[in-house]
Amino acid sequence: MHPNPCVVLHGGAGNLARYQGTTRLTDAEEFLSSLLDSVYNDLLKGASATEVALTAVRAMEDCGFFHAGRGSSPASNGVVELDASFMDGSTLRVGAVASVTLPRHAIDAAYAVLTRTEHVLLVGAEADAQIRDFGLETVSQEWFTPCDILGAAWEVSSAQLPPMGTVGAVVLDGQGNMVAATSTGGTLRKTAGRVGDTPIPGAGTFAKNNVVAVSCTGHGEFFLRAVAAHTVAMRMELLGETVGTATAMALQSVVTLGGSGGIIAVDHRGNYAMPFSTSGMYRAARNSRQRIVAAL
Amino acid sequence: MHPNPCVVLHGGAGNLARYQGTTRLTDAEEFLSSLLDSVYNDLLKGASATEVALTAVRAMEDCGFFHAGRGSSPASNGVVELDASFMDGSTLRVGAVASVTLPRHAIDAAYAVLTRTEHVLLVGAEADAQIRDFGLETVSQEWFTPCDILGAAWEVSSAQLPPMGTVGAVVLDGQGNMVAATSTGGTLRKTAGRVGDTPIPGAGTFAKNNVVAVSCTGHGEFFLRAVAAHTVAMRMELLGETVGTATAMALQSVVTLGGSGGIIAVDHRGNYAMPFSTSGMYRAARNSRQRIVAAL
Repeated sequence: MHPNPCVVLHGGAGNLARYQGTTRLTDAEEFLSSLLDSVYNDLLKGASATEVALTAVRAMEDCGFFHAGRGSSPASNGVVELDASFMDGSTLRVGAVASVTLPRHAIDAAYAVLTRTEHVLLVGAEADAQIRDFGLETVSQEWFTPCDILGAAWEVSSAQLPPMGTVGAVVLDGQGNMVAATSTGGTLRKTAGRVGDTPIPGAGTFAKNNVVAVSCTGHGEFFLRAVAAHTVAMRMELLGETVGTATAMALQSVVTLGGSGGIIAVDHRGNYAMPFSTSGMYRAARNSRQRIVAAL
Repeated sequence: MHPNPCVVLHGGAGNLARYQGTTRLTDAEEFLSSLLDSVYNDLLKGASATEVALTAVRAMEDCGFFHAGRGSSPASNGVVELDASFMDGSTLRVGAVASVTLPRHAIDAAYAVLTRTEHVLLVGAEADAQIRDFGLETVSQEWFTPCDILGAAWEVSSAQLPPMGTVGAVVLDGQGNMVAATSTGGTLRKTAGRVGDTPIPGAGTFAKNNVVAVSCTGHGEFFLRAVAAHTVAMRMELLGETVGTATAMALQSVVTLGGSGGIIAVDHRGNYAMPFSTSGMYRAARNSRQRIVAAL
């Protein structure tokens, strides 16, 4: 049994300062706090990193607080498009979907690509057809909360705030296995067909046993250009940097390009880091020594 | 003026041994030889790395010898799907398209995403709509050579061989700027909606001035999992490895996962490398000291 299993969650980085003092912020923190303890206890009882990451991301997709799953909002064509990826650090296998509209849980679709195909990334209408063939739970567009309508409201009323933020989980389990999982419903009124870093191995998600598991959130184009998640892994593997230094350096490369966001990561000893360059990032982490839940 | 501008081209890595002794192989080599000299002369006359890479990839897309552009073949749903990416090493900007069906030149669509949008990656039907809006040249499916029909024939007759291989170009120009460009028509009868490494920055394509420009070809899933192109760049940047060592190490990480293929790369001094793990890779390279055109 690994002495220090660890789970780290994020619900997106961004301008959370505008949510300060609202129940939206505290409700989301309470949700994350409860979820964190639940999946950490699963870990202690022997659940695998894969099980814990899927459970955590599914819950964040369903809760409506974050911009993924139920909390997603329509792209420019009025349709909600989902992206997700899952990487297993023990095999370096990856499954991912981009620009799909059907699954209740995009993370399950990503995981099905990993377990049930020889592929890494399936996109668009053909990926939706595959999701039906997999027998995964599908939803109609009405499932998604209408935050495009709320969008007009939250500019004038802090009582109605739209969900915000990609979600992600990185886990080190009791066997020393590491996984990373990330899911998003895009950004509000994004260009239809646009894909960010979330479903891209190396950009939004990366995991390699004995090195690191990483999930990113923020302005996806900049994380793609910086190949941010893989930068964290390479710096740790090639230079021996700590997870704190490597995530800070990778985030700096995003900021240097003009982007913003945050990164969560856990190393093979259960040390974690959660840097962000925005006014806040929904985040939660627990290992044998520490427990943190925060937004700002 | 940089003392050693360099251009390196590939037309795909794979089981080229089966083409040995055929006119298909020698015709493709002659085509690459002529293209190499033409674009190298452009470089000497002051053409930018961007111009040279686009010219070279467009020509390879049009020639029908390779599995990109006109030489593409239908996916499992009978439709040709194209992927391409372009990365400018001077700005680290990237443009890419995946699973599009309309453009004559997928590389132009990728470059238009870079120059005309704030995005990196557009996919599927919505990307096709954007390609129309850009005013790029579009073609009907009849444009693509029917190599799915030839597919039955080439098993029994070496006279009729289907096109093979993703195409790519990496260039260091007289100003010291570096770009990488990659384009593919998928793999024969691939799963519709499947996306490989070609349009993914970090996996199939990467360029960073003063470090390296990289384009990959082969079994895309393995290059995605290995984040192969970015691995080359990180090893050179963080460890100071030569382009030869770094490409060999990155290719080894693909082979370790069970994949095969090849990598072309040029460093900031105009040194290049073209390793492959298959029986052949269409390749061509020229700088002030060397000129190579080969397949096996």
